[in-house]
Amino acid sequence: MILDPDCIFCQIISGQAESSLIYKDDLVTAFLDNQPINAGHVLVAPNKHIPDLAQLDGAIGKHMFIVGQQIARALRRADLRCEGVNLFLADGTVAGQSVFHIHLHIIPRYSGDGFGFRRSSASLRKPSRAELDSIGNIVRASLNREVELR
Amino acid sequence: MILDPDCIFCQIISGQAESSLIYKDDLVTAFLDNQPINAGHVLVAPNKHIPDLAQLDGAIGKHMFIVGQQIARALRRADLRCEGVNLFLADGTVAGQSVFHIHLHIIPRYSGDGFGFRRSSASLRKPSRAELDSIGNIVRASLNREVELR
Repeated sequence: MILDPDCIFCQIISGQAESSLIYKDDLVTAFLDNQPINAGHVLVAPNKHIPDLAQLDGAIGKHMFIVGQQIARALRRADLRCEGVNLFLADGTVAGQSVFHIHLHIIPRYSGDGFGFRRSSASLRKPSRAELDSIGNIVRASLNREVELR
Repeated sequence: MILDPDCIFCQIISGQAESSLIYKDDLVTAFLDNQPINAGHVLVAPNKHIPDLAQLDGAIGKHMFIVGQQIARALRRADLRCEGVNLFLADGTVAGQSVFHIHLHIIPRYSGDGFGFRRSSASLRKPSRAELDSIGNIVRASLNREVELR
């Protein structure tokens, strides 16, 4: 296991810092968020210190998602307020990442929980198909420069 | 392919409705959100009509994540404003799901883009470890009733 002694998640994963543990295997650890959006808000993190999405190995990423999906199912069946679930991952400071040990949020949701998004007024405008296609060309060109997806 | 003729995403995936296509393989299709949070906001959806997370086959879920991760990388390298990325999935109406064909959002983010969360004031309180452990016990018990994770 590659651990960063200054990383709070590495400390949690190695048992040096306290947490409310939900699940652990050889790739990932899941524990409760210390400042939950709603009760039952879980974080799934790789056991290795991986700061961001760019450095996240695909095998670990896939497993984070599967574990997240199972936890989402468990939350819906748990004796908790959970009528829906959000999966959320923040990659980068501007995206809201505060701990640079990548993690997937599993957030139980219920009617009137007060959680939601604020959007800029500009983002409420619906772009034309021509505008979208022009952006799409840029994204697709960049994706085609990436490695094979499968 | 199992398609629902009344589903807008099934219509997009089958080419009956227009979209700005980003990527397609035998499991998933990625296309631009018609009302993007920011330019380059992509949705990754299974080709099959799968309404929600509970019905999402693990193999497809994992692949959605991997494709999402590749698109996130492409967005960061594209000629677009992208200094960070959010992955986001809404499962259920209360979680913000509006199209009941499950999909993963890949949202490019930049400083001052006006996007963010609003939280309830209650959620800003930091629960005690005892409170967290009590919730953790409930979640863990429910998870242990679920099928084997791997």
